[in-house]
Amino acid sequence: MDDFDIERVAEVDLQDPVFIEGLPGVGHVGKLAAEHLVEELDSELVCRIYSTHFPPQVSVEEGLTQLACAEIHAVYAGDADLLVLTGDHQAQDTVGHYGLTDTLLDIVEEYGASPVYALGGVPTGELIEEYDVIGAATTEAMRDELEEFGVEFRGNEPEGGIVGISGLLLGLGERRDIPAACIMGQTSGYLVDPKSANAVLEVLEEAIGFEVDFSSLEDRADEMEDVVRKIQEMEQGTPTPSDEDLRYIG
Amino acid sequence: MDDFDIERVAEVDLQDPVFIEGLPGVGHVGKLAAEHLVEELDSELVCRIYSTHFPPQVSVEEGLTQLACAEIHAVYAGDADLLVLTGDHQAQDTVGHYGLTDTLLDIVEEYGASPVYALGGVPTGELIEEYDVIGAATTEAMRDELEEFGVEFRGNEPEGGIVGISGLLLGLGERRDIPAACIMGQTSGYLVDPKSANAVLEVLEEAIGFEVDFSSLEDRADEMEDVVRKIQEMEQGTPTPSDEDLRYIG
Amino acid sequence: MDDFDIERVAEVDLQDPVFIEGLPGVGHVGKLAAEHLVEELDSELVCRIYSTHFPPQVSVEEGLTQLACAEIHAVYAGDADLLVLTGDHQAQDTVGHYGLTDTLLDIVEEYGASPVYALGGVPTGELIEEYDVIGAATTEAMRDELEEFGVEFRGNEPEGGIVGISGLLLGLGERRDIPAACIMGQTSGYLVDPKSANAVLEVLEEAIGFEVDFSSLEDRADEMEDVVRKIQEMEQGTPTPSDEDLRYIG
Amino acid sequence: MDDFDIERVAEVDLQDPVFIEGLPGVGHVGKLAAEHLVEELDSELVCRIYSTHFPPQVSVEEGLTQLACAEIHAVYAGDADLLVLTGDHQAQDTVGHYGLTDTLLDIVEEYGASPVYALGGVPTGELIEEYDVIGAATTEAMRDELEEFGVEFRGNEPEGGIVGISGLLLGLGERRDIPAACIMGQTSGYLVDPKSANAVLEVLEEAIGFEVDFSSLEDRADEMEDVVRKIQEMEQGTPTPSDEDLRYIG
Repeated sequence: MDDFDIERVAEVDLQDPVFIEGLPGVGHVGKLAAEHLVEELDSELVCRIYSTHFPPQVSVEEGLTQLACAEIHAVYAGDADLLVLTGDHQAQDTVGHYGLTDTLLDIVEEYGASPVYALGGVPTGELIEEYDVIGAATTEAMRDELEEFGVEFRGNEPEGGIVGISGLLLGLGERRDIPAACIMGQTSGYLVDPKSANAVLEVLEEAIGFEVDFSSLEDRADEMEDVVRKIQEMEQGTPTPSDEDLRYIG
Repeated sequence: MDDFDIERVAEVDLQDPVFIEGLPGVGHVGKLAAEHLVEELDSELVCRIYSTHFPPQVSVEEGLTQLACAEIHAVYAGDADLLVLTGDHQAQDTVGHYGLTDTLLDIVEEYGASPVYALGGVPTGELIEEYDVIGAATTEAMRDELEEFGVEFRGNEPEGGIVGISGLLLGLGERRDIPAACIMGQTSGYLVDPKSANAVLEVLEEAIGFEVDFSSLEDRADEMEDVVRKIQEMEQGTPTPSDEDLRYIG
Repeated sequence: MDDFDIERVAEVDLQDPVFIEGLPGVGHVGKLAAEHLVEELDSELVCRIYSTHFPPQVSVEEGLTQLACAEIHAVYAGDADLLVLTGDHQAQDTVGHYGLTDTLLDIVEEYGASPVYALGGVPTGELIEEYDVIGAATTEAMRDELEEFGVEFRGNEPEGGIVGISGLLLGLGERRDIPAACIMGQTSGYLVDPKSANAVLEVLEEAIGFEVDFSSLEDRADEMEDVVRKIQEMEQGTPTPSDEDLRYIG
Repeated sequence: MDDFDIERVAEVDLQDPVFIEGLPGVGHVGKLAAEHLVEELDSELVCRIYSTHFPPQVSVEEGLTQLACAEIHAVYAGDADLLVLTGDHQAQDTVGHYGLTDTLLDIVEEYGASPVYALGGVPTGELIEEYDVIGAATTEAMRDELEEFGVEFRGNEPEGGIVGISGLLLGLGERRDIPAACIMGQTSGYLVDPKSANAVLEVLEEAIGFEVDFSSLEDRADEMEDVVRKIQEMEQGTPTPSDEDLRYIG
């Protein structure tokens, strides 16, 4: 197998598509948001990307295996066409991160997709009530536009920069003159956070111009709140939760 | 030396061989099972596979050294011809796992071997009495067939997926249209487990159609039960076991 | 992207330039010294060096992102022309260190720059009053010359050798017949150390023949002394410092 | 720089040379033994081997730097010509170990050197009085010959095999039909062990047919015994030793 190997599943004809990335990261915010788009809207698997820099692993569903990969779906969001990247893995090493991002940007260019939105979370270190959305962009034009939709640009935040595929989509995207922005929902960093994903998607709705139903994400948020409540009770000396409750964590 | 280097030892002429993998893993279930076939049945070393992704190491036997490698034996199991992969090492890095598996699948294709059975263990986290055998397959046909032989397919179990060469033989095998299945014996995960290997081999006997004598494996299982008994006694305050007893662990 | 990718920003015409390296390291001495030259003197960004061996990361400034890189500025220091390397990262792996240094030495040769000065710190393990400057060189001529400017050469110190880009600029530089020296300010190793950077720059002023104003570095040194004082008070039981105080550490 | 780069220093004309390896390892036994040959006998530096798989580092001697490397000296041991490999580093990764050993075996073949002796230590885990020498070989002929000189071949000992360059010189040497043996002095594993190096060299004297003066090695052994004595006193509650004493450890 090549270092990066694209399996084409369907040919699609898209009008001025936007590229959206949601791989695993802080609070799984980006992953939840991107998967929500694929599940709730009219969508179609376009390709799978395999890589020797992904974990040497298959996942199992209904007894059948799937080699570790990232998937790109075409999502038809009303008038807007989206290419949405989802998956369960980041690359496993530094060189792999750069190579995977270059492979993704080749696909972005192939479809003439623009701009690129990388979705993620920013950890606050504490449980939060308000889900601010922080941004970073490769161009002043994107920054100014996203500010209009309520995204906050806070000097040099996040201070540690943006790491992984999200960061490189901006860094390598800029070098190819592909406008790109990272949209990050605030999140505690301790739990999978559907509310933060919701906040990120609300920005995206406005920036791109589409609508998506949030009820399933709200249901997951309610489930998470139950988990948080039980954890807080635990800390106050109540019995330990069942395995099922903890399944939502991490 | 090339990244992957095949040393041909014997030319063999096999009828519709089946490929069986048993490298080290949980409870050494796959390794025990595969080595049992090589030792108990009529077998012949076909080739050794060396790799710069194996540990930089030689083993020593009777004062003579052997470079780290994996070995493929032809095993003549009655009417069935088998190609059995054994060895002491997994690849040492992600890229090496993919490259080693590709090298193995080249050999599988060279001999027209089909299907591929990857043998392994599934950890339960506790000492067990009943040795269920869990499966995962690349095709519904293989899944259905193995179910008839008592292999259990349990939704998305194992939840963490299947890692290492076993997982990739399925993942990369599927991409080459080579039918493959992983047959995993339940095992505590704490000890080398000949009983679990026995359970896996019983499935294989039925699926492939051959017979093998289990007495040496049963002897090792008895030895392991002695070890377990002594460990349980230790936990109840009896004297520590001798080094010899512990030699069987890991 | 190539393993090492040079983005040319400005063409410059330099007279017999000297190359100065100041990447992060012990006490950030080299980095502080090199950045001070770029900030205080007349300077111009010549190129950025990107690499798949840098962290997969962008930094954020005013909401805009910059891919991880090293930067080379032309610095016009009176009669002396300097090429000054600064950045926030060392390479992430052994092979990357060698490759990045080779890329840098290609640029050194392209501009005919000579000699190469690698700036850094030597940890003493305790807070110090006197900032001795230790040296190591590729040639006896450079050693003798630097000794005249007060640099101390102490047998085989530093005992652990010199690691990272600084070490390789000497090691690989010597193999290309480029004279090179490492100039290391003593520093505790616990704190960012502007005073040690000051001591290193004073040597450089004499060795190259230029002058730079130290007041901003002295201001940072004063700030650090406040931090040290507060830490010492902490150890004696006074209240913990604010986050702002600790921002200067590391 | 290439992955492995040979700097030729002197042309030498050797009669049926033997190749001896002594890189750092358990108790520094191999390194001490090999360096003793280079220092005590008539010797000449033949070449240095640099590698991007060595640490990115220079060492410093008299203020001058030397890039991390391994060195091969021609050693004229009476009637016997030796090629002796010494150095301060093993390769830093698995692929580097294989590549470095292949580079060394190219040189072995270039000089027609045979056999290859890899020197090292075997840890016993306790301070020892008798320094047995254990062997492992690629051929029965070498095993039988070394047994005559008092080397012990003990079944599959060392149980963990032989790792690093020593192991691969045998493993890859055998694949090139170069006879090779590893000669390992028993050692506690806790301290640099000149006595164990002495025992290894005595075997080598007989196997190759040369004589070397051991007095400097005996002096170092005496120094180490002082250190051991002081450590033993420490454990019995006497004052801590000076830094100078501890310098000999590791």
